[in-house]
Amino acid sequence: MTHTPHPAADRPFSPFFLSDDGRCLHLLDQRRLPAEEIWLEITALEALAEAIERLAVRGAPAIACAAALGLSAAAHAFPDDPPAFRAAALAALDRLARTRPTAVNLFVALSELRAALDAHPQADARTLRAALRACADAHTQRELHACRAIAEHGAPLLPEGGVLTHCNTGALATAGIGTALGVIFRAHQLGRRIHVFADETRPVLQGARLTAWELARAQIPFAVIADNMAGALMARGEIQAAIVGADRIARDGAVANKIGTYTVAVLCAYHKIPFYVAAPSTTLDPDLRTGAAIPIEERDPHEIHFHGDRRMTPLGAPARNPAFDVTPAALVTAYITERGVFRRDQLGALFDL
Amino acid sequence: MTHTPHPAADRPFSPFFLSDDGRCLHLLDQRRLPAEEIWLEITALEALAEAIERLAVRGAPAIACAAALGLSAAAHAFPDDPPAFRAAALAALDRLARTRPTAVNLFVALSELRAALDAHPQADARTLRAALRACADAHTQRELHACRAIAEHGAPLLPEGGVLTHCNTGALATAGIGTALGVIFRAHQLGRRIHVFADETRPVLQGARLTAWELARAQIPFAVIADNMAGALMARGEIQAAIVGADRIARDGAVANKIGTYTVAVLCAYHKIPFYVAAPSTTLDPDLRTGAAIPIEERDPHEIHFHGDRRMTPLGAPARNPAFDVTPAALVTAYITERGVFRRDQLGALFDL
Repeated sequence: MTHTPHPAADRPFSPFFLSDDGRCLHLLDQRRLPAEEIWLEITALEALAEAIERLAVRGAPAIACAAALGLSAAAHAFPDDPPAFRAAALAALDRLARTRPTAVNLFVALSELRAALDAHPQADARTLRAALRACADAHTQRELHACRAIAEHGAPLLPEGGVLTHCNTGALATAGIGTALGVIFRAHQLGRRIHVFADETRPVLQGARLTAWELARAQIPFAVIADNMAGALMARGEIQAAIVGADRIARDGAVANKIGTYTVAVLCAYHKIPFYVAAPSTTLDPDLRTGAAIPIEERDPHEIHFHGDRRMTPLGAPARNPAFDVTPAALVTAYITERGVFRRDQLGALFDL
Repeated sequence: MTHTPHPAADRPFSPFFLSDDGRCLHLLDQRRLPAEEIWLEITALEALAEAIERLAVRGAPAIACAAALGLSAAAHAFPDDPPAFRAAALAALDRLARTRPTAVNLFVALSELRAALDAHPQADARTLRAALRACADAHTQRELHACRAIAEHGAPLLPEGGVLTHCNTGALATAGIGTALGVIFRAHQLGRRIHVFADETRPVLQGARLTAWELARAQIPFAVIADNMAGALMARGEIQAAIVGADRIARDGAVANKIGTYTVAVLCAYHKIPFYVAAPSTTLDPDLRTGAAIPIEERDPHEIHFHGDRRMTPLGAPARNPAFDVTPAALVTAYITERGVFRRDQLGALFDL
């Protein structure tokens, strides 16, 4: 794993892509943004797993695509003996499943990869490698197209004026133009006069670092705010809508998303402001009956104690660090997926049940 | 202005006190906490004004006390000619009035100092210096006693379990044991089993740095959380009450306090959790009919862009930085002052009208 400048500046922007020979995943290290654009070159499974755990790549759809593409790259180092290849691939799927628990997209992609292996019970290693690669490419392509469709469906919903978003849900978080941020991009492209308020999104600052970086590149008017400012701006009438992504949506419509999303939803309900959730259908989890069953990742409190390189809390101070929260359907105005816009009274249609 | 270690470690803790000769204000530089305990020695008016503007001292009651005591110290350098002394003192009051606009306590103290000058129209400089000093001491003593009374009145209100607080309202913010944090200290002292959740309070992190420092010293169980986590903890049933301080309370009961307070109040209302405001009566502003008239300080966006020494937003990214917000009376369960506990239907009694 080495650091290189972006090796393919002429391609459409994506925070991850495979080398031409398929043996290396190029991954933009999002921890270093916006100060530096450093690309990781990932060829080994453990490096891939750590890149996901340590947030070099983040965002539910992006994690899934990077995991699938990265596994197909790492598979070049798996043994050529078919049973040994298969064992290595299954161990790899296991390892990747232990990286981050909350977003379901990762598990969808891992199931697809598993099915690709199962579909070729007698195959040689070359065929299995090709099957994994085809599966990863297909997953990524589907997510790319889902972003476009989400943006088309969602853009007409956004009012002119202040639009609040939380965390990062743009090209950096997906395989395409984004989910919630993709809707904002498209609405802006269609001439809607939008001023984005980007929650900085403590503790990892995906809003301050990543959403601000994408909004600046897209030349959309915006301001970064501390997470605790959105309420006051709503009270002053400066915010007309909020739109966020999702990491997992349970059958009752409850949405797991970046910590702080629930507070945004409560504030929207209190101020009678629409609260939209934009996500591909890979984020739907029909196997989970309620939001209460969604596993919530607790991350190292280190992320709370330190700001930049500086410890801000007293030594020994305890801190909590749940990385996600769960917003009940009652607070969601509508779900925007690649298949259309669904109100909370259309959960059956949303899940295509 | 030089840096020295705490010159009087044997006195009861206060973040500010005058030297024995009254010519120097010793001021704990709260920007350096908790990493370092550095005491500023302030003898000149401009240094005092800048210490307030740049948050070496903060917290509505503490600002007022430090301003009054600091002015009495700086007055030793004013001319001995009585009219010139008076002119210098009035200019000093003017300069201090321009430091921070939102907390009314500062303006209460400045009015008292002005009245002390006016009460001695024919006095010499020595008498005027003594009058300023007596006035500053009296203001500080009143605030010290108010803290004790607030804590006594408020402690019985706190339930056992999780208590959320925002910003810092302890000894560092007042002349005594604190307002909201003083109530928590007293309830803990009385054996109430309380677990404090301290909002880190972006952007200046008074919660992560200062409240955590005070809670650790007092050995009260606590955890620091990011501001965007309180809602999720309430939804999980981990928070039973919230208590905050105030920078100014208008006649309609609206409370200006640290940015993020309003969001805490909305979350409490949504979760049917009591939301208490603890403040001395110097924080009441009977001259302001509504909260909408409270001046809200907008601070340098630098505080949003930087975390520690590191810029986190892209260069050129816009940011907003209102330092306070306004919570309407409808969201306040009760106001706790040194004169007792007042529900929102007792605003007349609260203002002693």
